[in-house]
Amino acid sequence: MSLLSLSPFVRGDEGMWLFNNLPIEYLKKQHGFEPTPEWTEHLMKSSVRFNVGGSASFISSSGLVLTNHHVASDTLFKLSDKDHNYLEDGFHAKTHADELKAPDLELNQLIAIKDVTAEVNATVKESMKPEEAVAARRAVIAKIAKESLDRTGLRSDVVTLYGGGQYHLYQYKKYTDVRLVFAPEAGIAFFGGDADNFEYPRYCLDACIFRVYEDGKPAKIEHYLKWSENGPTENELVFVSGNPGRTSRIFTTAALKYQRDVRMPFALNLLRRREIVLQQFGLQGVEQARRAREELFGVQNSRKAYLGMLGGLQDPSVMAAKAAAEAEMLKMISADPKLAKYKDAFSAIEKVQKERAAVINQNLAFNSQLVGIAINLVQMIAEDKKPSGERLPEYAEADRESLEQQLFSEAPIYADLEQYILADALSRTIELRGADDPLVVKMLNGKGPGERAAELVAGTRLIAVAERQQLAKGGEEAVAASKDAMIEFAKLVDPEFRRLRKITDELAEIEKQAYAKITELNFMTKGTSTYPDATFTLRLAFGTVKGYEEGGETIPAMTKFGSAFDHEVNHAGQKDFVLPESWTKARKDLNPETPFNFVSTADIIGGNSGSPVVNKKGELVGLIFDGNIQSLTADYMYTDKQTRSVSVHSSAIREALKYVYGAENVAAELGK
Amino acid sequence: MSLLSLSPFVRGDEGMWLFNNLPIEYLKKQHGFEPTPEWTEHLMKSSVRFNVGGSASFISSSGLVLTNHHVASDTLFKLSDKDHNYLEDGFHAKTHADELKAPDLELNQLIAIKDVTAEVNATVKESMKPEEAVAARRAVIAKIAKESLDRTGLRSDVVTLYGGGQYHLYQYKKYTDVRLVFAPEAGIAFFGGDADNFEYPRYCLDACIFRVYEDGKPAKIEHYLKWSENGPTENELVFVSGNPGRTSRIFTTAALKYQRDVRMPFALNLLRRREIVLQQFGLQGVEQARRAREELFGVQNSRKAYLGMLGGLQDPSVMAAKAAAEAEMLKMISADPKLAKYKDAFSAIEKVQKERAAVINQNLAFNSQLVGIAINLVQMIAEDKKPSGERLPEYAEADRESLEQQLFSEAPIYADLEQYILADALSRTIELRGADDPLVVKMLNGKGPGERAAELVAGTRLIAVAERQQLAKGGEEAVAASKDAMIEFAKLVDPEFRRLRKITDELAEIEKQAYAKITELNFMTKGTSTYPDATFTLRLAFGTVKGYEEGGETIPAMTKFGSAFDHEVNHAGQKDFVLPESWTKARKDLNPETPFNFVSTADIIGGNSGSPVVNKKGELVGLIFDGNIQSLTADYMYTDKQTRSVSVHSSAIREALKYVYGAENVAAELGK
Repeated sequence: MSLLSLSPFVRGDEGMWLFNNLPIEYLKKQHGFEPTPEWTEHLMKSSVRFNVGGSASFISSSGLVLTNHHVASDTLFKLSDKDHNYLEDGFHAKTHADELKAPDLELNQLIAIKDVTAEVNATVKESMKPEEAVAARRAVIAKIAKESLDRTGLRSDVVTLYGGGQYHLYQYKKYTDVRLVFAPEAGIAFFGGDADNFEYPRYCLDACIFRVYEDGKPAKIEHYLKWSENGPTENELVFVSGNPGRTSRIFTTAALKYQRDVRMPFALNLLRRREIVLQQFGLQGVEQARRAREELFGVQNSRKAYLGMLGGLQDPSVMAAKAAAEAEMLKMISADPKLAKYKDAFSAIEKVQKERAAVINQNLAFNSQLVGIAINLVQMIAEDKKPSGERLPEYAEADRESLEQQLFSEAPIYADLEQYILADALSRTIELRGADDPLVVKMLNGKGPGERAAELVAGTRLIAVAERQQLAKGGEEAVAASKDAMIEFAKLVDPEFRRLRKITDELAEIEKQAYAKITELNFMTKGTSTYPDATFTLRLAFGTVKGYEEGGETIPAMTKFGSAFDHEVNHAGQKDFVLPESWTKARKDLNPETPFNFVSTADIIGGNSGSPVVNKKGELVGLIFDGNIQSLTADYMYTDKQTRSVSVHSSAIREALKYVYGAENVAAELGK
Repeated sequence: MSLLSLSPFVRGDEGMWLFNNLPIEYLKKQHGFEPTPEWTEHLMKSSVRFNVGGSASFISSSGLVLTNHHVASDTLFKLSDKDHNYLEDGFHAKTHADELKAPDLELNQLIAIKDVTAEVNATVKESMKPEEAVAARRAVIAKIAKESLDRTGLRSDVVTLYGGGQYHLYQYKKYTDVRLVFAPEAGIAFFGGDADNFEYPRYCLDACIFRVYEDGKPAKIEHYLKWSENGPTENELVFVSGNPGRTSRIFTTAALKYQRDVRMPFALNLLRRREIVLQQFGLQGVEQARRAREELFGVQNSRKAYLGMLGGLQDPSVMAAKAAAEAEMLKMISADPKLAKYKDAFSAIEKVQKERAAVINQNLAFNSQLVGIAINLVQMIAEDKKPSGERLPEYAEADRESLEQQLFSEAPIYADLEQYILADALSRTIELRGADDPLVVKMLNGKGPGERAAELVAGTRLIAVAERQQLAKGGEEAVAASKDAMIEFAKLVDPEFRRLRKITDELAEIEKQAYAKITELNFMTKGTSTYPDATFTLRLAFGTVKGYEEGGETIPAMTKFGSAFDHEVNHAGQKDFVLPESWTKARKDLNPETPFNFVSTADIIGGNSGSPVVNKKGELVGLIFDGNIQSLTADYMYTDKQTRSVSVHSSAIREALKYVYGAENVAAELGK
């Protein structure tokens, strides 16, 4: 029909493709490559998800896992203390016995995907009120997940795709005994710091190596990536297998305007605030700076990413392009009486944005681990009284193991940092909800935010894991009787958390139904060979290794070891541009021509960090660690003109292991 | 009458007293000291105001002026370039010929004060609409100022006191040829950096020395302060003569709640945003960091000050105390039929706060010098067509010289920094007013904020002072014909600036009338021996040199040179805690027992920076440079329990000049 004449759904090398719906025809036609089912399965099973929010891959038969330093940084921080700063100084285990067990990592290996859309949709009826629909959807999803878990023993997640258009069951093998093998210094992993973040050219060894264990021994891994001898060459086709976190490409203009006018400014105000708070805490001393640093990195990274996203949305031409495409779609709908019902989807989404904007200032965010633990405990114990399908999803039976791993983690919690962060969060809550808000009055307990935060942190014993376990074991009576200050605080705020959660869950439900309709329309008019927005589940992206033009200059596809030393000289006097001593010492042994970082057109986003880049033979040729500044608008639109993903070259990792770190034991195992 | 039995209007050593209404009786009774008219006049005329926002004093007959390094920093920055960083590295002129002329400093010496309340009030009638009242008040004030200027040749400012209760004419001798004589390194002036700012104990040589010139020669100064031989001792009575910038002690609870719930959170979001923007700009390189640094200091200082103020207002007990006092006052009003008319004042103020809150998001703030210059030019030329009394006050005839000094200043403007700041300011304007706001659409000219900022900065020639002067000379036709991008931008936004200005001026007028009534009530019930809120005009504060208790610890009144070196050791590894090389080298020559900084109970606030601290003999014993963290709530309440002002000890300045900097020539001139 005539609708097929519309502009193609995807452009160039766009796409974060589902492993069960790859663009085989496009790859064949455009790149002369047809992935076989074996190739695809091997890559899928060689890919690893870090549940803290990153991607990775198996790179040896004995369980070596490669990811980014900045994905590992959470664990490096948790393993560190006043006297061992692995995050800053790096780590190298010369033997298995030296490897350090991560306190709470969970790694997921995707084993199978099953489309369960029909089963979900059979339960959730259009005629239901949002509240009923939320409950029905929650129940059927919990049931599918639980049945899968019981049947297979695999972690089972039902994933919402196409904004609500499809539901797939993802089954994962879990690894929870994960040990640190190698990390470089932060100075080379994040060379150029916040200034160079999201920039290119780059010179970063943003890599870290773990090993998964089973039954106390290095796990035997069937699917792992071979290590490419020389890495990629310019213009070579490469593939990225990873877990992009979130995109908004299906968003209507109303939804994008909400992001532009409300949510992103709101989020950025919070991020800037947290950035200053963490900086200020760090100014108190060297140890305080260490305690704050990992979170500060994360906040700065988000701030820069959000600013890039917002910058695009604030460009009138970007929004005009989105609006024009939507206008064309709406014109098409109006022209065809059979399509009339789809129009409501757009107005439903617009209405949801207004309602979101109306409650955003009621937002409760404490950014405190202790408050989080207390709320988790209070909620878990309350939820456990209900059947699994009626609980808030994070407390469903199928997810309990993962939840408990986090809740009972031995990772350190620093009371001084907690108090500092909480004081600011209380102050922010007063600002957002008003000092006369009855909940705020109760939260403060007659004190100023600083004094109250001190009281709460001093009055809790939840820093001790045993205390948390005892409360969990004690159940309802233990929580009711508890005089722990944080537990009492959690009991106070829990009803409001639930009230707000109910509102946002119902708004999300309305959106799901609306986006399901828009997806139906897209499939009908543009075909089903497309990909859904990112959902922090495994996707395949592809592209070619190539540079780009910027401000009249040609940015080359690859950088070299030698240029890293030049970069240091060009930025003399700037604190984030000092190469670690290990590199200065090893300079004479390094080949300056060794490729260091490279860019490709593969379509990625946050969450893809640590993704393996592989060639047609399925060999590892690179390690995704960033996108360039032009890629920050990829949240809602992709163009291969300047958008590039940035990777560490496989040869750089191998050479650095050998010649900078003397980590021959690790280098010898790569791809073996 | 019975109302006099209420709690006294001021507490302990509270007060920023008018030089024409000093608390003679209190000083006599409490401190056994009675200032003579000569003592008072000498101190007044020895005091100096820095129009950039600070205080100072004459300290020699040949025009030496002592202020803070952080008051001078604006000038130090303007005198610096890529190769001379006086702000960071300090400066010392060995001869008069070496002294560096500040590009745009104006120093004011207060000569006389005259109460003109009757004349102002005779013109502004209660029956007038706010718009008419604004115009009438503006006209009479411009007239008084102009007549005074013509009659005396002195800078003449009509100052609004008691929130609108009184109007005084301040006549100043102006000094505009001001030259830099001595500045220490930022490392000792601001030892401890942002971390130690507003903290005590401190170890800062926050001092800087200028010299005023007349007719190209060092000015002959009649009133200057003698230098105390040994400085103050503990428990000594001291006086502070300076220009506190702004306090809000008369504020009603409604006005304080507006500060707490609306204005301060709004201002803090802007400050944090600017802080991050300036940090990010500085990350680009050493020279960029230098360019951003001075403004960054200012923003960080304000952020910390505002957080302290907000922290107090968010403490329920603070607001409860304010509310209780107000309730008592309202009860008194209700009880006395003669006082009934005063009740309206409180509700009028409450209404103003709501109206302020309603327009705050329309706020236009570009933080760009070039935009500021363009708007000044466009407005000045438009205003000059009107009689002086009908103009916006800053364009009145009496102020023209000061305005032109700023507008045609040769201080450097950095295009790269301007562009960076403006891009963010445009982005913020989109956030605040919405992307679909018609003015925003026009401001962006179809481009994103970054691209538009680049276009504006590239399209202006206003960096050249000659260009500004030519436009000013060309007048209306020149501005109308100008295709300069910034001038066109200013013409675009000027009507909206004026619309918002009209709203805020009228709200301020309503407040002035209401606070005038409240002041009348205060005078009637509590007597006239009181002081008005700070107005960046000369005030006298007094107090005793003494320490305080904090967290069970006694904080001593004074610190010593020796402890500065200990402080460095205690903060090893922190970048703002490294003493300059000059101090490390001079250590052997310094007496470790020399007092360095001290605290007193004198009631000060921002703007008092650089104020001389004098003893009963009128000798200089110290130099105000900060308040402790507890003093940050002094904006709206004073208590001498922990609130302390922090000064550099006079001996520290003298000894450092001699033994650290070899500035014998300067040391020899102190007080001479």
